Amino acid sequence: MADGGARTLRRVRVELGERSYDVELGGGLLEALGERVVAQTGASRAWLVTVPPVGRRYGPRALRSLKAAGLRAKRLDVPDGDATKNLRQVEKLYHALLEGGADRQSVLVALGGGVVGDLTGFVAATFLRGVPFVQVPTTLLAMVDASVGGKTGVNLKEGKNLVGAFHQPRAVLGDVETLASLPPRQRAAGFAEVIKAAAIWDAALFDELERHAEALLELEAERLVPVLARAVEIKAEVVSRDEREQGVRMLLNFGHTLAHAIEARSRYRGLLHGEAVAVGMVFAARRSEALGCAPVGTAERLEALCQRFGLPTEAPAYDRSAYLEALAVDKKQKDSRIRFVVLEGLGAARTLPLAPSEIAAALPRKASSRARGRGRAVSRRQG
Amino acid sequence: MADGGARTLRRVRVELGERSYDVELGGGLLEALGERVVAQTGASRAWLVTVPPVGRRYGPRALRSLKAAGLRAKRLDVPDGDATKNLRQVEKLYHALLEGGADRQSVLVALGGGVVGDLTGFVAATFLRGVPFVQVPTTLLAMVDASVGGKTGVNLKEGKNLVGAFHQPRAVLGDVETLASLPPRQRAAGFAEVIKAAAIWDAALFDELERHAEALLELEAERLVPVLARAVEIKAEVVSRDEREQGVRMLLNFGHTLAHAIEARSRYRGLLHGEAVAVGMVFAARRSEALGCAPVGTAERLEALCQRFGLPTEAPAYDRSAYLEALAVDKKQKDSRIRFVVLEGLGAARTLPLAPSEIAAALPRKASSRARGRGRAVSRRQG
Repeated sequence: MADGGARTLRRVRVELGERSYDVELGGGLLEALGERVVAQTGASRAWLVTVPPVGRRYGPRALRSLKAAGLRAKRLDVPDGDATKNLRQVEKLYHALLEGGADRQSVLVALGGGVVGDLTGFVAATFLRGVPFVQVPTTLLAMVDASVGGKTGVNLKEGKNLVGAFHQPRAVLGDVETLASLPPRQRAAGFAEVIKAAAIWDAALFDELERHAEALLELEAERLVPVLARAVEIKAEVVSRDEREQGVRMLLNFGHTLAHAIEARSRYRGLLHGEAVAVGMVFAARRSEALGCAPVGTAERLEALCQRFGLPTEAPAYDRSAYLEALAVDKKQKDSRIRFVVLEGLGAARTLPLAPSEIAAALPRKASSRARGRGRAVSRRQG
Repeated sequence: MADGGARTLRRVRVELGERSYDVELGGGLLEALGERVVAQTGASRAWLVTVPPVGRRYGPRALRSLKAAGLRAKRLDVPDGDATKNLRQVEKLYHALLEGGADRQSVLVALGGGVVGDLTGFVAATFLRGVPFVQVPTTLLAMVDASVGGKTGVNLKEGKNLVGAFHQPRAVLGDVETLASLPPRQRAAGFAEVIKAAAIWDAALFDELERHAEALLELEAERLVPVLARAVEIKAEVVSRDEREQGVRMLLNFGHTLAHAIEARSRYRGLLHGEAVAVGMVFAARRSEALGCAPVGTAERLEALCQRFGLPTEAPAYDRSAYLEALAVDKKQKDSRIRFVVLEGLGAARTLPLAPSEIAAALPRKASSRARGRGRAVSRRQG
């Protein structure tokens, strides 16, 4: 059958002219992988790139499906963790592909979370000047966020995602049954991007999240799939209007200004990305109220929803100069303004140019000047 | 003045939708660089990437022009030679750019031949997921060939240009006065791609090359600029119709099937690329006659023109198995056919599927079987 036994299937079209593709979400989609890859790429060989824990659990089913569709398929494991997203791994993958005889009739399939998707996507964007690429996200975050937008990239020692390319996948298959093995904290963090999509774009989705938070956290497919599909649809709509991130796509950064600062300050060892985004969203909602952009009560409702999903909502009390430093992307341009995303209510947003100092002024700060002095010294060493 | 004092200026538009750009050819264009970069990119900082010999000769003029247009400009030197086109250099450039504070308002300017253009273009394609890129080719080959098509790339130990991206420049400025320092052999080799453009596409250009071969080799600007502009126009026309190299763009491979085999067989230490292309073109023209595609006399006329430009026309007598191995790109698919480009006369071409063995059968071969045995052993060590 056409859907390969998939259950509760939803399909979202990402409209990008001749680079358009479908994001499919549902249960049992892993079994449909081979058929979709053949239909969307016409490839004869597939390379399944994954990390060991995901590969052990879902690799055999993915490979079986690819081979059943007539593809020669091989699994390539990369180490787990964000440190993997670097040029060394990219180069190792090039060599592994060439050693295995990969050519322009090959397709790369990323099976895993955002790290695997970003890394594999970048290799697909640049190997032989671009080969087709299919994403099989196995985390909530990757299903709703990394699977739309075509952003691929790796980290340099100077920072995250400093190298990359825009390379659209040919297809995205999100099998929600793979989410069952996701630890509770990862699960909660994934919902942060769903909440974000609702907050900036869709009041009805926000209501739906409020009505069914617990069922969604339990991954009940009939509730979950339509909600994820709507979040993907929102991102796809925004990205289709603005593929290269100049205008409306900026709204997707809601909550991310502070989130990135917190992540940089903690060297990515504290909060998960989704957790930092929740903190950033609640902070941004409070600023939206204070600046008169959003009605009173907006931040409180957002905060309550985040808390029901088990997400943190208060910013860590770092030294102000540490926040300032992390907020100013280019340290030589400390006074240049950031396009900060504010809510106009739940379901609508816009950008507002703010100086880093205006943002930092509203953040919690350390109490004593001695502690601040120490904070500065530490932040310098870490800068 | 708008043309910054440029002489005998010709402008060719490369039509690629919103990625369209102009290739300008003429004398004194280096002085117009800064103005063009600002007009085409709106950048505030420029990074001039070059190799030491070219940088010493033309770097100061290029930097002066960039700075006079209000840009903060800095020169970055990479080592000379094709071995430079590797991932190590790419990574070094990323770090140098970040150390110098490069951001999305930065433009990369490639000053030099094809190696500098390919390397700089790939860095521009991938740094911060893509920054603008301007090409200032200083060789004939780069002016007519590398400046159109958007191909960027680097080599891996397994082969040339195995990694890359399609990234169109914002502008190409070919200052023909920089050609004066080109050694005679490089100059001749550059004309091979001009002859190729004429042979596959434009009988009138072929006539023009026959009429003025000597004046062109002397780089007389009034003759040279229109001829180069026409060659660029032909490539631009072909590429505009077929940006991603599926159909008509294949014709640009005329002479290249054998050229690549010769280059691979000699490990790129024998003939220059343009010389190998001349050999490949004459061979392909002879095959075109033998296969009944082109009228008798086609190959002779092409051979005579190549010789007037000082280009070789006879293939080296390698062992047949060595040629076969080099012709079969994927050694596991020795019997798969190559889309070989044949002439239908001077000024028109098409592709014809041929097996590597059909091509190799017409090549000169070593005489004794002992020599052939040795050739095989050598070719294996080199494969």
